[in-house]
Amino acid sequence: MTEIRHLRPAGKAIFKDRYTTKAKELLTNWLPRKSAKYGIIGLPLSKSSISYSGAAFAPGAIREALQSYSNYAGEIGIELTDEIIDFGDLEMHPTDTIGNHTRLYEGLSDIYQTKAVNNWFLLGGDHSVSYASIRAFKEQLGSVGIIQFDAHHDLRNMEDGGPTNGTPFRRLLEEGIIDGRDLVQIGIRDFTNAKQYHNYAMEQGVTVYTMATVREIGLNAILEQEIDRLAKCTNHIYLSVDMDVLDQAFAPGCPAIGPGGMDSTTLLNGIHFAAQHESVKAMDIVEIDPTIDIRNMTSRVASYVLLEYMKGKASM
Amino acid sequence: MTEIRHLRPAGKAIFKDRYTTKAKELLTNWLPRKSAKYGIIGLPLSKSSISYSGAAFAPGAIREALQSYSNYAGEIGIELTDEIIDFGDLEMHPTDTIGNHTRLYEGLSDIYQTKAVNNWFLLGGDHSVSYASIRAFKEQLGSVGIIQFDAHHDLRNMEDGGPTNGTPFRRLLEEGIIDGRDLVQIGIRDFTNAKQYHNYAMEQGVTVYTMATVREIGLNAILEQEIDRLAKCTNHIYLSVDMDVLDQAFAPGCPAIGPGGMDSTTLLNGIHFAAQHESVKAMDIVEIDPTIDIRNMTSRVASYVLLEYMKGKASM
Amino acid sequence: MTEIRHLRPAGKAIFKDRYTTKAKELLTNWLPRKSAKYGIIGLPLSKSSISYSGAAFAPGAIREALQSYSNYAGEIGIELTDEIIDFGDLEMHPTDTIGNHTRLYEGLSDIYQTKAVNNWFLLGGDHSVSYASIRAFKEQLGSVGIIQFDAHHDLRNMEDGGPTNGTPFRRLLEEGIIDGRDLVQIGIRDFTNAKQYHNYAMEQGVTVYTMATVREIGLNAILEQEIDRLAKCTNHIYLSVDMDVLDQAFAPGCPAIGPGGMDSTTLLNGIHFAAQHESVKAMDIVEIDPTIDIRNMTSRVASYVLLEYMKGKASM
Amino acid sequence: MTEIRHLRPAGKAIFKDRYTTKAKELLTNWLPRKSAKYGIIGLPLSKSSISYSGAAFAPGAIREALQSYSNYAGEIGIELTDEIIDFGDLEMHPTDTIGNHTRLYEGLSDIYQTKAVNNWFLLGGDHSVSYASIRAFKEQLGSVGIIQFDAHHDLRNMEDGGPTNGTPFRRLLEEGIIDGRDLVQIGIRDFTNAKQYHNYAMEQGVTVYTMATVREIGLNAILEQEIDRLAKCTNHIYLSVDMDVLDQAFAPGCPAIGPGGMDSTTLLNGIHFAAQHESVKAMDIVEIDPTIDIRNMTSRVASYVLLEYMKGKASM
Amino acid sequence: MTEIRHLRPAGKAIFKDRYTTKAKELLTNWLPRKSAKYGIIGLPLSKSSISYSGAAFAPGAIREALQSYSNYAGEIGIELTDEIIDFGDLEMHPTDTIGNHTRLYEGLSDIYQTKAVNNWFLLGGDHSVSYASIRAFKEQLGSVGIIQFDAHHDLRNMEDGGPTNGTPFRRLLEEGIIDGRDLVQIGIRDFTNAKQYHNYAMEQGVTVYTMATVREIGLNAILEQEIDRLAKCTNHIYLSVDMDVLDQAFAPGCPAIGPGGMDSTTLLNGIHFAAQHESVKAMDIVEIDPTIDIRNMTSRVASYVLLEYMKGKASM
Amino acid sequence: MTEIRHLRPAGKAIFKDRYTTKAKELLTNWLPRKSAKYGIIGLPLSKSSISYSGAAFAPGAIREALQSYSNYAGEIGIELTDEIIDFGDLEMHPTDTIGNHTRLYEGLSDIYQTKAVNNWFLLGGDHSVSYASIRAFKEQLGSVGIIQFDAHHDLRNMEDGGPTNGTPFRRLLEEGIIDGRDLVQIGIRDFTNAKQYHNYAMEQGVTVYTMATVREIGLNAILEQEIDRLAKCTNHIYLSVDMDVLDQAFAPGCPAIGPGGMDSTTLLNGIHFAAQHESVKAMDIVEIDPTIDIRNMTSRVASYVLLEYMKGKASM
Ligand SMILES: [Ca+2]
Ligand SMILES: [Ca+2]
Ligand SMILES: [Ca+2]
Ligand SMILES: [Ca+2]
Ligand SMILES: [Ca+2]
Ligand SMILES: [Ca+2]
Ligand SMILES: [Ca+2]
Ligand SMILES: [Ca+2]
Ligand SMILES: [Ca+2]
Ligand SMILES: [Ca+2]
Ligand SMILES: [Ca+2]
Ligand SMILES: [Ca+2]
Repeated sequence: MTEIRHLRPAGKAIFKDRYTTKAKELLTNWLPRKSAKYGIIGLPLSKSSISYSGAAFAPGAIREALQSYSNYAGEIGIELTDEIIDFGDLEMHPTDTIGNHTRLYEGLSDIYQTKAVNNWFLLGGDHSVSYASIRAFKEQLGSVGIIQFDAHHDLRNMEDGGPTNGTPFRRLLEEGIIDGRDLVQIGIRDFTNAKQYHNYAMEQGVTVYTMATVREIGLNAILEQEIDRLAKCTNHIYLSVDMDVLDQAFAPGCPAIGPGGMDSTTLLNGIHFAAQHESVKAMDIVEIDPTIDIRNMTSRVASYVLLEYMKGKASM
Repeated sequence: MTEIRHLRPAGKAIFKDRYTTKAKELLTNWLPRKSAKYGIIGLPLSKSSISYSGAAFAPGAIREALQSYSNYAGEIGIELTDEIIDFGDLEMHPTDTIGNHTRLYEGLSDIYQTKAVNNWFLLGGDHSVSYASIRAFKEQLGSVGIIQFDAHHDLRNMEDGGPTNGTPFRRLLEEGIIDGRDLVQIGIRDFTNAKQYHNYAMEQGVTVYTMATVREIGLNAILEQEIDRLAKCTNHIYLSVDMDVLDQAFAPGCPAIGPGGMDSTTLLNGIHFAAQHESVKAMDIVEIDPTIDIRNMTSRVASYVLLEYMKGKASM
Repeated sequence: MTEIRHLRPAGKAIFKDRYTTKAKELLTNWLPRKSAKYGIIGLPLSKSSISYSGAAFAPGAIREALQSYSNYAGEIGIELTDEIIDFGDLEMHPTDTIGNHTRLYEGLSDIYQTKAVNNWFLLGGDHSVSYASIRAFKEQLGSVGIIQFDAHHDLRNMEDGGPTNGTPFRRLLEEGIIDGRDLVQIGIRDFTNAKQYHNYAMEQGVTVYTMATVREIGLNAILEQEIDRLAKCTNHIYLSVDMDVLDQAFAPGCPAIGPGGMDSTTLLNGIHFAAQHESVKAMDIVEIDPTIDIRNMTSRVASYVLLEYMKGKASM
Repeated sequence: MTEIRHLRPAGKAIFKDRYTTKAKELLTNWLPRKSAKYGIIGLPLSKSSISYSGAAFAPGAIREALQSYSNYAGEIGIELTDEIIDFGDLEMHPTDTIGNHTRLYEGLSDIYQTKAVNNWFLLGGDHSVSYASIRAFKEQLGSVGIIQFDAHHDLRNMEDGGPTNGTPFRRLLEEGIIDGRDLVQIGIRDFTNAKQYHNYAMEQGVTVYTMATVREIGLNAILEQEIDRLAKCTNHIYLSVDMDVLDQAFAPGCPAIGPGGMDSTTLLNGIHFAAQHESVKAMDIVEIDPTIDIRNMTSRVASYVLLEYMKGKASM
Repeated sequence: MTEIRHLRPAGKAIFKDRYTTKAKELLTNWLPRKSAKYGIIGLPLSKSSISYSGAAFAPGAIREALQSYSNYAGEIGIELTDEIIDFGDLEMHPTDTIGNHTRLYEGLSDIYQTKAVNNWFLLGGDHSVSYASIRAFKEQLGSVGIIQFDAHHDLRNMEDGGPTNGTPFRRLLEEGIIDGRDLVQIGIRDFTNAKQYHNYAMEQGVTVYTMATVREIGLNAILEQEIDRLAKCTNHIYLSVDMDVLDQAFAPGCPAIGPGGMDSTTLLNGIHFAAQHESVKAMDIVEIDPTIDIRNMTSRVASYVLLEYMKGKASM
Repeated sequence: MTEIRHLRPAGKAIFKDRYTTKAKELLTNWLPRKSAKYGIIGLPLSKSSISYSGAAFAPGAIREALQSYSNYAGEIGIELTDEIIDFGDLEMHPTDTIGNHTRLYEGLSDIYQTKAVNNWFLLGGDHSVSYASIRAFKEQLGSVGIIQFDAHHDLRNMEDGGPTNGTPFRRLLEEGIIDGRDLVQIGIRDFTNAKQYHNYAMEQGVTVYTMATVREIGLNAILEQEIDRLAKCTNHIYLSVDMDVLDQAFAPGCPAIGPGGMDSTTLLNGIHFAAQHESVKAMDIVEIDPTIDIRNMTSRVASYVLLEYMKGKASM
């Protein structure tokens, strides 16, 4: 496009500072046989949510938020320069909701099988996508321990609503894909779960840290202990970040908001800390509904979650 | 409605997990001679506000927010199962604002007189409703010490605007319904009050804790000391929770928002702590305007305030 | 609740003028064996929409809008006093979208079978609900001619997305539930349909009036001719009102808005006119998404659509 | 402020085209004994509204909207250059709603008594202000015929809610300030009034034109006939413009919106026409709530209503 | 991307009906030496606006709106299948506003010089972009008659604010790029212009049709007469569509909205009519600010304006 | 205006408590030769922003927010009573953006030269205004050390975008107006700056404290050390408060929001602390865009920033 002065492709005529690399510029298109340190896949499924949710729009919103930030982590003096392969999004069917879980499973199986990247970022969608993702991950890449950041257990029974965003970890446990001891839930809050599901978690040997415990012990201390433990009994560690682990003041764009949650600085520090462990290999970010968010604040936090993960890996 | 498949009453065709009890399900209709541990009454008056306020819509919004949360307090392993009698709302006249204070007083006198419940929840409305509520409470149930969470003294003169949301505690003091020593104000902030009203508070012997003091000493330490003191000289303790005690980031739906306030976790812990004292018998929640709130965040905090109170009583 | 002064049930403490009957007051609860002139059923399904839609919230929003209007049609000097049986809403499953069409069909079959009312109002939901409604209506009550107000044909193929809001009339035609000659589409606009679906409509013998034709001939002239024709070859006439037949300025709360549509006065006059024909027995109102509406404008028009229908019947 | 380069008073550093006069620039401050062709007074009372209303903010919003428009009416080739004395706003008490009607009456009595201007513009506020305005107008300036543009009769009984925005014309009739024959209501809609109030209007001899009649006969034909009639039996004609006479698409910022109303071009042409009659001497504009308006659209129409009135007078 | 099941490029995993062509699918990327019937260029400049304007976001919003509509004009039975070359956007400098006019002129000169397309669509930006566009058009392609749809003359003096959105046609006239007789202004409204600029238009021989005239004569009659006249004395006709020619109810997203404007159906019919004349060769669409629009309504109208133009050409 | 009962100037008919002084009441108009302790000047320039910004509206929004707060700092028992001279706003040209920097420089040079006040408050506008302000300040009043609260370095190169909000401190350094050792940047965050600009800061000897450091050491400890250091080598200290130093939860109305920032209580305490040093003589507040703010939260914090500064001076 060199012949015409000042012309840029549609939507690309935006200010460029020659010395600044936007985090979004790290994204590159996927090609067969290409490999890289990081890969990202969009999982735009939210019709499986119990409550009304536009989380299917989150993969786009989070990618867009990466345009707002640079690649430089001044606090540790490191510039992130590794490319992130953007595989794209998995296509969802308008009415076959249950089949969409199969589609997610099939697409992610194929993607993980490529072994194209060392670190996998999955952008939901609602939390139901984690079932397909973790199942495919385990089958293709080996056993997996899970650190779930969440206000909720997500261990509901399947009879009442099928595979919703309230059931992913129940399904993984019931189908024997993971063992209860391989699941750590951090940030569980009062009045966000039924007693029976707490009991179920206990019966299954799930490790649960409430927000009160996080405040008392500190997130990084919890992470240190649990990651060490999980790393000994599983091949990989998978972080599942339900953004509603944050207080509503810090993540106003989640469907199930409430007070008493984590602040975003704590979460970001925790992700930075966790990613420094070599076993940590994948992370999903779920439950952001951009249609109800305020100034994309929650997607902005999500983009920081990605960057802190990469900062952690760059710090190793 | 058993003959017709899938039919539910209008508005009730919503997802139900068989193991989950929503906090709102604890509400039951009032009937003469019925009694329970908790009772709730809506006081939808806000035309008495100095600034434009839709706080009259708050009783509905807070009840609705109870639908978003469960009855299980995992941090202490307790399920809340005591019913809450919902007395309903007191009817307000469109133009007779001053008469509405009388209506509140009359209705609440009748309600308190039933002695139907052990713990009274009053949902404002603006803060002017506390005058009627506390006066009726004292006349029907005995003397009362007050813990007021608020950025403001609410001790304005009556001459300039009549019985507004700026005057409830002035009226109570001037009419001898309470004594200054029986009033504790917590969370008072800079630049939210006139010097003369601070001086008035001092002259009356009101105990005042500013936000700086709350940050320095801690809310629970303050509550412990003051509840013990009040319990000795009054029959009951009444919590008056003006939600603008919270910072604007945590309670965006109050008419008089500002920075420098309390965070919601601190408030919730404080209510949990206070409610464990047997003298604490009533609580009003005021100054939430759902028409300017963001995603009902402030009503959501209010519903948690109720739940933390009940958690406190359940912990006794 | 006579013992306590000023007390009203929660949410009912609202101003009441003794001489004014709100349209919403005409709604009464359904009971087995009860019968009336009108009946209303909520069909809260919108996960079947191609685009993101909160049309499942519309039954509640439309009922609520009836509270804003009275029962008096001054232009014809008639007060609407016949009760409307509110059957309630049909319960939808969170993830079994296709099964929800069966649920709608089953519930409506049972309801129509009661023959409890003379005129049936169905509140969607997205337009996919019309398939279940019309199929059940025909099976229970006899053959049916359809007047569809819509910017779109809704004759898409089923292969690409299953039973979405783009397919209800295709399904009815393909399954032989209706014949093409029994379907009249009014308000079809440029650039809102594919050529192939226009061709399909022509092949099936569907009668199509574009907005240009509506402007040229007038809506009532079209209705007079088509209702007379349909009344001769079918037992009943069913109005299917997709609110996106209106211009975006008049119905901002539909998912698929655009310019060049009908104004609301024309539609309201048309409904009034059509309902005066004795064959007209049912009407659905679909494709209102209250979550994106402006001041519930679109639900307000919907409530007027109901009232104009009743005014038509009252004028007979 | 000539010594400091580029300095302007706070809020006045806005672009000024040397050849353009903004309509707002016609406003001048009132001083005792000053006189002019036009005068404007703000009546910021809306706590008297039946429904929640911020109409008290309308005087400011309408004045501000005058800044968006120029003083030149190209269609008749006339520049409006007569000044408009801005008397200011009458101060309302926060809780003494009924006393505020007296305040309006007293303030307006004093203002009308000055006879400072030939044409009076009153900016509400809700419609209850018209009672005080018309009563004071008649007592100070002589008998008055009223053209009321409104979807509603505003003839409710006083017992149920006191002097609300539903009662101004009832009060005027009952207190004998006006006679039913002197009141013309234009734009009355179906389902916006109770039958009993229609009957009351008929009994009192009020002249009522529904929207159907306006569409059939035309607004200007109605105005011509009624203004001529009123001019013969009263000293002055007073226009009372409730903006909800407009369809919700054209006046989204009124509390009581609905479909089927007038379009704004028709209203503006009608005001232009009416103002050309020498008997027309005053106009109030009421029922705009800027807090729920969209881009101040409704206040923008109001500013045009003022300008069309002045254009009418300039055309005489 | 055939190896991985269900994978689509980021943002492209959206529902596709095999028989439907979205209007946006007609857009193709520009390549040197490529030619087509239509071309589109984005001109994202709005810092030149007198009032605060985000019109620079409109090119993206209008392209996106093309995704909401199909390519089939049922009213004339024609499917639009000609491709539209999307040249992209011209890059604007953050602070060199006046230089940006030069950039627009240089880029458009290069683009017009390619003679790559028969019909040019220019997407503003504010109206100041028309100066550069028309100047470059004339220099590269021949003399030009202009049909300007606008509530405003845009003939302000240059001294007070430089080359703003108030001055494009003044600049064109003063620099002799066009002659007054070659400029037709349609839709001018009262109170939107200063008298001096009306006078200037008259002195320059500009033809002006106010909205009153449009309503009286009809838009198509005006267009027929003026296009015939212009076609005789210029080589080409250029349509300049300032969306604020529409009433605020139909185009809520323009910076300078007001009542009394054109409805969108009239404008769309006019564009369809005008485009059928062979002299009409270019069209700009300006003054849409997506940041203040409601549900992209105004960009939706703009996308229809493009489609109606193409429908006109397809009807020739 | 004593003759007419209840009349107040337009917009001034608001509730007044006789004992309460609003902070806004401290503002007084500027007159030549007048002097006071504080002065305030509005700098409404934001067309110089890299991203779309309405920061030009902030001076008005911040002044208005002062109306929400009183003059009494209860925590230190001091009433602020010193007047603040409101010089007004500097007028900006619509299209001559670069010239506007000169206008700011000229206007502020004249204002500083008056030496009318002891403490200068500058209300931006975007951060580009600080260049003109600091340059003029130094030339008129002496050398200056700067404490910049900001998430960003604002040391971008000038070639790519001219004098934007990304360059003010680069310009000051490059033109030798300040030395790198005189600049302290507090609150710099990860992913908000390019590495090259961090390096530039280091090369120039700028002192940088990241948010991690602020959390570790504490803001007041940093301020104490740096103010002491700067006070030794410069005549005055100038605080430059970019509100995006705050976390997005506390300052949602800044153009460049993100997580991980400072909370507002920390900032307010820091300003109070800093202002107690006698060298601190000026403060600008920039980067608030009221058009995207939520309930003016960010302008409310800004008004508190002013009040805390004054509280600091009153505590000396
Ligand atoms: Ca979850
Ligand atoms: Ca969750
Ligand atoms: Ca209070
Ligand atoms: Ca308060
Ligand atoms: Ca449809
Ligand atoms: Ca449709
Ligand atoms: Ca009225
Ligand atoms: Ca009315
Ligand atoms: Ca223009
Ligand atoms: Ca224009
Ligand atoms: Ca900055
Ligand atoms: Ca910054």
